[in-house]
This record gives sequence, C-alpha cells and structure tokens, in this order.
Amino acid sequence: MTAPRPSSPSRLVERIGEYETRYAALRQRGLKLDMTRGKPSPEQLDLASGLLEVLGPQDYEAADGTDTRNYGGLDGVAELKAIFAEMLETAPAQLILGGNASLTMMHDAVVRALSHGVPGGSGPWSKGPVTFLCPSPGYDRHFMICQHLNIAMISVDLDGEGPDLDTVEKLVAEDASIKGMWCVPKYSNPTGVTYSDRVVKRLANMRTAATDFRLFWDNAYVVHDLYTESDRLLEVLGECARAGHPNRPLVFASTSKISFAGAGVAAMAASPENIADAKRHLGVQTIGPDKLNQLRHARFYRDFAGVRAHMQKHAGLLRPKFEAVARVFERELADAGIAQWTRPRGGYFVSLDTLDGCATEVVRLAEAAGVKLTGAGATFPYGKDPRDRNIRIAPSLPPLSQVETAMEVVAACVLLASARKLAS
Amino acid sequence: MTAPRPSSPSRLVERIGEYETRYAALRQRGLKLDMTRGKPSPEQLDLASGLLEVLGPQDYEAADGTDTRNYGGLDGVAELKAIFAEMLETAPAQLILGGNASLTMMHDAVVRALSHGVPGGSGPWSKGPVTFLCPSPGYDRHFMICQHLNIAMISVDLDGEGPDLDTVEKLVAEDASIKGMWCVPKYSNPTGVTYSDRVVKRLANMRTAATDFRLFWDNAYVVHDLYTESDRLLEVLGECARAGHPNRPLVFASTSKISFAGAGVAAMAASPENIADAKRHLGVQTIGPDKLNQLRHARFYRDFAGVRAHMQKHAGLLRPKFEAVARVFERELADAGIAQWTRPRGGYFVSLDTLDGCATEVVRLAEAAGVKLTGAGATFPYGKDPRDRNIRIAPSLPPLSQVETAMEVVAACVLLASARKLAS
Repeated sequence: MTAPRPSSPSRLVERIGEYETRYAALRQRGLKLDMTRGKPSPEQLDLASGLLEVLGPQDYEAADGTDTRNYGGLDGVAELKAIFAEMLETAPAQLILGGNASLTMMHDAVVRALSHGVPGGSGPWSKGPVTFLCPSPGYDRHFMICQHLNIAMISVDLDGEGPDLDTVEKLVAEDASIKGMWCVPKYSNPTGVTYSDRVVKRLANMRTAATDFRLFWDNAYVVHDLYTESDRLLEVLGECARAGHPNRPLVFASTSKISFAGAGVAAMAASPENIADAKRHLGVQTIGPDKLNQLRHARFYRDFAGVRAHMQKHAGLLRPKFEAVARVFERELADAGIAQWTRPRGGYFVSLDTLDGCATEVVRLAEAAGVKLTGAGATFPYGKDPRDRNIRIAPSLPPLSQVETAMEVVAACVLLASARKLAS
Repeated sequence: MTAPRPSSPSRLVERIGEYETRYAALRQRGLKLDMTRGKPSPEQLDLASGLLEVLGPQDYEAADGTDTRNYGGLDGVAELKAIFAEMLETAPAQLILGGNASLTMMHDAVVRALSHGVPGGSGPWSKGPVTFLCPSPGYDRHFMICQHLNIAMISVDLDGEGPDLDTVEKLVAEDASIKGMWCVPKYSNPTGVTYSDRVVKRLANMRTAATDFRLFWDNAYVVHDLYTESDRLLEVLGECARAGHPNRPLVFASTSKISFAGAGVAAMAASPENIADAKRHLGVQTIGPDKLNQLRHARFYRDFAGVRAHMQKHAGLLRPKFEAVARVFERELADAGIAQWTRPRGGYFVSLDTLDGCATEVVRLAEAAGVKLTGAGATFPYGKDPRDRNIRIAPSLPPLSQVETAMEVVAACVLLASARKLAS
C-alpha cells in the first residue's frame, strides 16, 4: 500500500458538482467493461497455443513408457512432476499432479480432513468445531470453501510482510479448533504482498493448540512476476520440516495462469506422510488424472526454464495493464488523499482501498456506468468487509485501452462517492 | 449365466493327476499375463488418435463463441452436451459434463449427500446411519467408495433381468437408512446383464422409506455393444419422473471406454433440481471443467452417430477376445459341470462362477502360473464373496493370443481347484 496523501476533504466537497457532472457524462458513454475476475486475456492464452498441437497420433508415451491415453498413474506423469518440483522447490516424490483446477485439490483436501482427518490428528475434523484463519483481503474462493463446508472463519490483517503474525500466533496457540489457515504467500490475492522470510519462519515454527493444523499454501502466483526480478519467497515445506512440523503445509499450484486457465494442470506438494494420505483417498475417487494433458504440458515447456521464459511473455502483456491502473489512479486520485492502492510486482490484482464505507457505493456507481467490478466485500470472509473499503481490480482480461477507460470510471466513482460521503 | 451342466464330480476326482500334471506344465511356461482390469487395448485407443490433432492453434472456440481455453462454463461445452444428451436419452439441460472420470462424479455426489444432503431430504445423510444396496457381483470401485466413506452395504443378488427386486423393494420400504443403490444397468459389471424393462419400472416406482433415496445409475456401458444389435435399456430419468420420483436417479457415463480411458469426458444426468443442487456445490469446488478436451471430443465425434460408428470399431476389436474366452471355457470346462460363465453381449467383463469355495484358490493358482486375475471377492461388498465362487475376467487389454492362453490357464486352474476340493 502507498502511504495516504494528506487528505483534503473540504476541497473534495467543494468540487462535488464537478464530480457529479463528470460521472453523468461517463454514464452517457454506454460502456460495457468487465473487470470482475482474474482471467487471462486471449493474447495470453495464445502464448500457449502450441499446446494444441504438441502431441500427435503417434506421440502419447511418457518417457517411462506409460501410455498416457490409458487408465492409471495416480500421481501424474513423471516429466511434468519434475518441472513442478523445480517450480515449487521440492522433490517429485512430494508432489501429486491433478486435473485442471488447484481449487478442486484444495477443496478436496479440506473435505477429506473433515471426513477422515489428517496425519497427526485424532480423527475427522468434523467431530468438533473447525475454524480457519483468513488473512484479509484474500481470495474469495478460499472463503467460499469454508463457508460452504460450515468452517468458521477468523479474519486476520495483512501488512506489507504478510499476515499479522502476532495475532496469528496468539490465536493458534489458544484455540484448538483452528485447524487451518489460507495463505497466498506470493503476490497475494489481491494485495500483491509476498510473505517475508520472517513471516514464513514464524508460520513454520509457531506452536499450535491443534496437533493437526494445516497451512493451505496456495502458491498460485509462484512464477507470475510482472518484472524481471522476482519476489523471493522462502520455501515452506523445508522450513516447516526444519521446524519439526513437516506435515503442516499443503502447497498448491497450477498452470492455469501459465498455460490455459481452463485446461491447465494442478498440483499439490506436501510431506511424504501427507502425500501418502492424499493418495489413499484419491485412489477411491479416481483411477487417475488426465495424463495426456500433463504430457502435453511437459512436451510444450520442456523444462522449468521453458516455464520461466514463457512467463516473461505473460509479463510483457500484463505489465502495461497494471501500469495503466497505477497511472490513472495516480493522476486522478493521488492529490485527493481519499484512496490507497497497490503497485504489485506480480500476480493478477490491484487492491484499492477507498475511504471507509465507500467501497459498495463505488462498485454500484461503476456498474451503473457500465464497468463491472468484483463485488465489494468479496475479498473478506462471508463477503463482509468490516470497513467497506476494499475493491479488487482485475486488469488482465480487457485490452489495454479498456483498462485505462475502466480505471478512469473507477476513479471518477471514487471521487464522487467520497465527496458525497464527506458531504453527508 | 448358462445353465450348469450336470456335474460329474467323481470323474473329475479320477482325473486329478492329469490336472496336476497339466497345471505344472503351464507353470513351467513362465507366463506373465495381466487380466485384472477392464482397460482398453492400445489398438482401441488408437481408434481415437484423431483426438490428438483435432484442435489446432486457431481452433478452440465453441459454437457459442466460448473460448474453451479460459475459465468458466461450469456445466460444459454445449456441443458435447448435445451428444451426451442423445446418448443418455435426456435433455442437455439435465446434464453436467465433468473431468476425465465418472468415478469422481459419483464419489463427489455421495460425499455431497453425506455433508449437505440432497433435494427432498432433511439435511446431511451423515446425520444418521447410511446404507447402500449393492447388487453383487458388482463394480469393486463402487463398493470401495461406500467402504471408504463408512456407508454400510447390503449385498443383493442379480439374475438375468437385474437385481432381485423382491428383496430390494422389501428392504427400501422398511429401512430409512437405505439412501442409495448402485446400479450398472446395461452390460452390468461383471455379469453383463442388462436390466429388463420390468426391473427399471419397479426401481422407478418402488416406495422407499427414505424420502431422499438415490439410484446411482452408472451407465458405463451405454453404447458398449459387442454385436450389431444393442441390448435395450429403459431410460431411467423419464421412468422415475413418470412414477413421481424425478429426483431418484443420478445417471453417470463417460467416454473413458469410447475415446481415451485416462483422458475422456465424464457426465452426470439428473432431474433439474438435482442438477441445480450439484452446480451449487460444483461452483465451490471448481471454476469449470476442462472445456478444451470437451471441445476436442465434440469435434472428433461430430454427433451421436459418430459415437455409434466409433463403437462398432471397438466391437470389432473386442468381440474376438470375448469369443475366445467363451470358446476356451466351452472346450475345457463345459463337460465337467463345475463352472458357469457369462457370454455378454456388451461391456467389458466375463463373470465366471466356480464351485463354492474355489474362487480364491483359482486366482492363487493362476497367479502362480503367471496369469494375474482380479482378486477373488473384489466384486462383492467388503471384498468378501460369501460363496467364494465369482471371478471377474477382463479380456480387453491383452492381445487375442494372450487371452486364449490366459483362459487356458484359468480353465486348468478351475479344473485342478475343483478336483482338489471334491477330493478333500
């Protein structure tokens, strides 16, 4: 977050007429722009179009001779496991590849823990109350899983280093019902924060009242840098093992925002004990994942260097859009001192904080002017932002010119909503 | 099942020495044949090799303009839904397409019912005891799901028309804990039986003590005929709707044994209310299935006639293997009157019944002679065949010559085990 400029509420209220006029003019334009979700653009998807022809009628065998068209192979094709292992800085044996959605792997891991428990625990989580810590603002779909499965959520603040560890340590030490914590540790959704080494170490070392506590470590943006230099994230499996808590983290990742959003490959990495436990369950749920699509990915990227090179092309397409958001906000909002926004170095979102109590109104005004934003509150547990100020901006999908226009609308809405609020 | 030939136990015992010698000779051959699972052969998979090149870098849009590479589309690509709808004789709106495994869709449907309940019920199934009826011999992976999720199983006999409905009707009317029943209604795994119209109608109409009873209708072999003429199966969704129980059936199918066993597309069909309920859950579990693979299938098969034509090619490869099994068993076993076996007109298995108490020994002897069979008992709940007589033969994977050899070994083992049993 940038430091807030000195607020000038009186000047803002003076100019309310100007803001009303400008908003009315924008409404006249009849825009129809969608900034709701972190979807890759068609140009980004085109980068991986080689995937559509990398295999052929005679090319379906993995290096170990597996016919990837047939049944079997619960934990995935070896050559793609090797690439994921390098990406997640772990051993292939500590990895399971899945289908097209890491969200499904996370959901299923929570469901399994509820119904059967996890290694080191004393039976199904569902035998008692279950609570998850939810650093917020965070990923709405994580919170939806908890809500759907009747898991209580406690919101925890995030700062520039990650979640507020003083609070986290206190809560997990006291409350044995806290079985899990959602983390997007790199280029966090939506604030763009990468957890500092100190935060990762404290998460690995902290004492938890629950013996079967799990970090749901959604490393969704592990290689999703906007600039040449990547944020550095401490590898959590090793940290936790060294801290004597090898079973604590369940690490998730996918190629959804590397190759195809809807037809990528997901993975889970964890301790050998957690992996064996997951495979015991997966063996009941499936005969095996889509190995053909896994082989496709292995052939297309060849190795982890191939993935790295590919991500630079994504950055080339995404960076101008993120910089446009920053440029418009800086130009339109910086002087007013009524909003803060992130300038992420990776990931898929810009997080915008308005004055307290304005986010819902900004989203409403923007929608009325033809710019759809993620619902206010979506980034908090139960969809309720206690300060009603956070808005998640997803600039990846629309063309650059539309991103600029949409952000001008959003800025105009922020100014109008703020002025109205201050005037009331 | 064929009628048993008149048994001639005394002659069998007389010839025990001959059987011992023959078995010993077979062991000498050092065979290594695997008949454990219903996997398609490489030649069958080759039939669909066009799937590997049917899409191209510019070809990823569905007919309605959906970019199938991107996120979204919870219930699948419309053009493939249309093909599945025709295959399952229902409306596309009553269908959800999934990933590569119908087993996963079944597993997840059971898990959802346990955790949240189903339309028409009074909350999560897991609030009380849950029992499933299991026509047996049946599909081992169905029974594994129940066992894993702590669902009690009651075995029900199958005859040439389907499950023993007198027993089924009595049980479901009396016991409200009976929430489900596994059915493989066409070319049943492993007995090859197709449920008669009378059986389907009784299943649709029967009174159940549980208001939220479900038929898990695994139509795995819906178009998997070995001969030109297909067995006719009454469409269950319509029958149940007409009987006033529209929410009773959950129908499952997949292209695993049509296109690629590991990279096909699965589907669930059900009442509008059941479909809406499933989508509510799926929306938490995933952003959408692999639509690109769905489009691949729609392009490759074009329409349901394309699927039909494709299945005739499978039949051409499978029929000689099934006929080889029948030929060897007829030649080696018919006169002895100690075994019965099925001559299926579709599906993937031959079901062999030995004398009571011999199946485990036959499987053991065969394995010692280098022929791996599915474990005896696998086709019954808890892996326990009460009469220890059923063996599932899966002739699809090995080449024809190996099928013949393997069946000669199995027949020799049946003769030896039977003779030993009768002599003891």
